[in-house]
Amino acid sequence: LDKVGIFMKVEILKALKESPQQYVSGQQLSRLLGVSRTAVWKYISELRQEGYQIESSSRKGYKLITSPDNLSAEEVLVNLHTSFLGKEIRYYETVSSTNNVAKEAAARGCMEGTVIIADRQESGKGRLGRHWVSPPKSGIWMSIVLRPKILPMQAPFITLLAAVAVSKAIEEIAQIKPGIKWPNDIVIHKKKVCGILTEISAEMEQVNYLVVGIGINVNFDISNFPDHIRETATSIKAETGTYVNRVELIVSLLEKFECLYSKAFDEKLRPQLMEEYKAYSVTLGNRVRAVSMNHAIEGYAEDITNDGELMIRTDDGKLHKIISGEVSVRGMYGYV
Amino acid sequence: LDKVGIFMKVEILKALKESPQQYVSGQQLSRLLGVSRTAVWKYISELRQEGYQIESSSRKGYKLITSPDNLSAEEVLVNLHTSFLGKEIRYYETVSSTNNVAKEAAARGCMEGTVIIADRQESGKGRLGRHWVSPPKSGIWMSIVLRPKILPMQAPFITLLAAVAVSKAIEEIAQIKPGIKWPNDIVIHKKKVCGILTEISAEMEQVNYLVVGIGINVNFDISNFPDHIRETATSIKAETGTYVNRVELIVSLLEKFECLYSKAFDEKLRPQLMEEYKAYSVTLGNRVRAVSMNHAIEGYAEDITNDGELMIRTDDGKLHKIISGEVSVRGMYGYV
Repeated sequence: LDKVGIFMKVEILKALKESPQQYVSGQQLSRLLGVSRTAVWKYISELRQEGYQIESSSRKGYKLITSPDNLSAEEVLVNLHTSFLGKEIRYYETVSSTNNVAKEAAARGCMEGTVIIADRQESGKGRLGRHWVSPPKSGIWMSIVLRPKILPMQAPFITLLAAVAVSKAIEEIAQIKPGIKWPNDIVIHKKKVCGILTEISAEMEQVNYLVVGIGINVNFDISNFPDHIRETATSIKAETGTYVNRVELIVSLLEKFECLYSKAFDEKLRPQLMEEYKAYSVTLGNRVRAVSMNHAIEGYAEDITNDGELMIRTDDGKLHKIISGEVSVRGMYGYV
Repeated sequence: LDKVGIFMKVEILKALKESPQQYVSGQQLSRLLGVSRTAVWKYISELRQEGYQIESSSRKGYKLITSPDNLSAEEVLVNLHTSFLGKEIRYYETVSSTNNVAKEAAARGCMEGTVIIADRQESGKGRLGRHWVSPPKSGIWMSIVLRPKILPMQAPFITLLAAVAVSKAIEEIAQIKPGIKWPNDIVIHKKKVCGILTEISAEMEQVNYLVVGIGINVNFDISNFPDHIRETATSIKAETGTYVNRVELIVSLLEKFECLYSKAFDEKLRPQLMEEYKAYSVTLGNRVRAVSMNHAIEGYAEDITNDGELMIRTDDGKLHKIISGEVSVRGMYGYV
C-alpha cells in the first residue's frame, strides 16, 4: 500500500479541483507538497493512468479536465469529509470478498474506520454463507472495519445503523427513497438493491472488531441475470433509469454512517436513531412470516424495539420478539 | 501435520499398552497396520525420540516400558474416548498462543473438535488482552475449536460448560474439588488455577466458530513467581502437593467437555447443566463487587440464571442482572 503516493495524488487532485478549468503550475504543486517538480510530474502520470484526464502545458502547468468513474482510493479521499471513517481506504481491483480482506486486515491490527473497496469480488458472500453476485465495476463492494468498545450482543445495532446510512445515501445521491426490510436489506420497489453482512470477532465480554460488509447494486443491467435473482433483486439504475456515480454514493454513505455511528453508544440517543431506522422500514405494519432455527410464525409486524428486535403480533393476539432469522414481508421476494 | 504418522504411532502404542510388560512381535504390528516391518521400526524409533522407553528384541519384538509425561498428540489420542472432541489434535512445542493458532486453523476450515496443545506459549493471553503466564512443560495450554449452530449471544453458555468440564477433570484426576469463580475462573483454596478465554467469530445470526482457550496451572512451583501473581494464582501441585499427569488431565477434560457440550443445545437440559455449574460456584452466596464498563455495584450473589447471568442483590434490596464484566468475591484475589 503506497500511502505516500495516495496522499500526494489526493493533494494534487484537491489543488486541481479548487481551480476548476484553470491551470495550476507545476511549481505551485511542487511547493504545496514539498517535493520536486519531477515528482509532481510522476504523480500526474500515475493519475492519468488511473483514468484522470489532465491537460499539461510546460508554461502554464496542469488542468483537470475529467475524473474517471473509478473506485480509486484517491477519488473517494478527495471528496470525503469524515474524521475517521474511510481515512484509510484500500482499493483492490479483484478480491475473494471484501469481508475476507477486511477480516485479515483487522486481525493484523488495521486502524478503526479502514475501508476495503473492490471493483470485483470473486466469491462475494451473503448472509449465512450464501453466494452474492457482484458484477464488476458497476456495484459498490466494500467492507468497513470498526472497533467499538461494546459487548458482542450489542453488535446487531451497528448493522441497523449501516442500513440507515445506506438508505440515506441512496436517497441523497439517487434521489429515490429506498426501504429497509428488517433487519438490513435495502429495497427499491420491493426488490433488493443492497445487502449488509456484518461479521464479528469477539471475546465473551468485548468485541475485537466488526467488519460491516456492504454490497450495493448500482449501475448494472439486471435483465441479464437469472430469473430467480431478477425476481428478488434489482439495481439502483434499473429502478431509477439514472446512472449513479459510485464514488459520490460511497462518500455520502461513509459520511452518514460516521455520523450515526458516533451517536450509537449514547443510550439516550438510541430511540432517535431507531426512529430514523423505522422511517425507512418496509416491514413494519405489514404481514410477515418469520422463520428461525427451529420454528416459524406468521403475523403482523407491530414494532421494532430500541434494541432492534422485531415485534410480531400473531393472529392469536400474542406478541413475539424476533431477534434474528429470516423474515419475509408479504408482497416482497415472492411471498404472496 | 503428519496425520498418517500420528495414526500409526497411536495404533502401535495401543497394541503395546494392551500387552503390558509383554513383547509384541514386529510381524504382529506389521500385520495390524498393513505396513512393512521396516516401517514399524521407523515409527518405534520416532516414539523413542518422543520419550517412550520401548525395549526391542529381534526375536520377541517390542515392549513398552514407560510413557513420557509429554503432551504429544499420540499420548492424548491413545487414551481418549470421545466421538469428535480431540479426534484431531495438533501439538506444538511453542506457539504465540494456542488461541491464535486455533483461530487460524478455524478460519482455514479445520474440523469441529480440533484441539491445539502447546508446551510453551510465547504470548499467552488472558481475557481483555491481558498477559497470561505460561511456564513451559508444566501447564496445560490448549484451545478447542467448536462450530455450534447457535446465535453469538448463546456463546457464553459454552464457556460456562468448559469451566464445569475443567472442574470435573481436576476433581477426578487431582482429587481435590475446585471452585468456579463466576463466570469461568477455576480456583483452588481461593486462588486461580485455570483461566478460560473464549473467542468467537460470527455473523449477526450465526456463529462461524468458537475457540475455547483453556490454561491450567498444573505442576509448576508458584514460589518463583512475582508477588502480585502469587497472591491470586496457584498451581494444582502447589495446592495438593501431588504431581499431576497432564495427559490424564487433558483426556478427562476433553471427555467431560464433550459430554456437557452434547447436551448444551437442548433447552430442557439447561437447568440441569446450570445446577452442575452452581455446585462448583464459589461466587454464589458471597459478598461480591461487580465492575462493568461504566459502573460498579456491591452486593450479595443470590443466583445464576439458566442463561448464566449473575443476579446480585444490593443492600437497597434491588436485584441486578450481570451479564459480563469483572466480579470480585470477598475473600478472594485480594478483595477484603
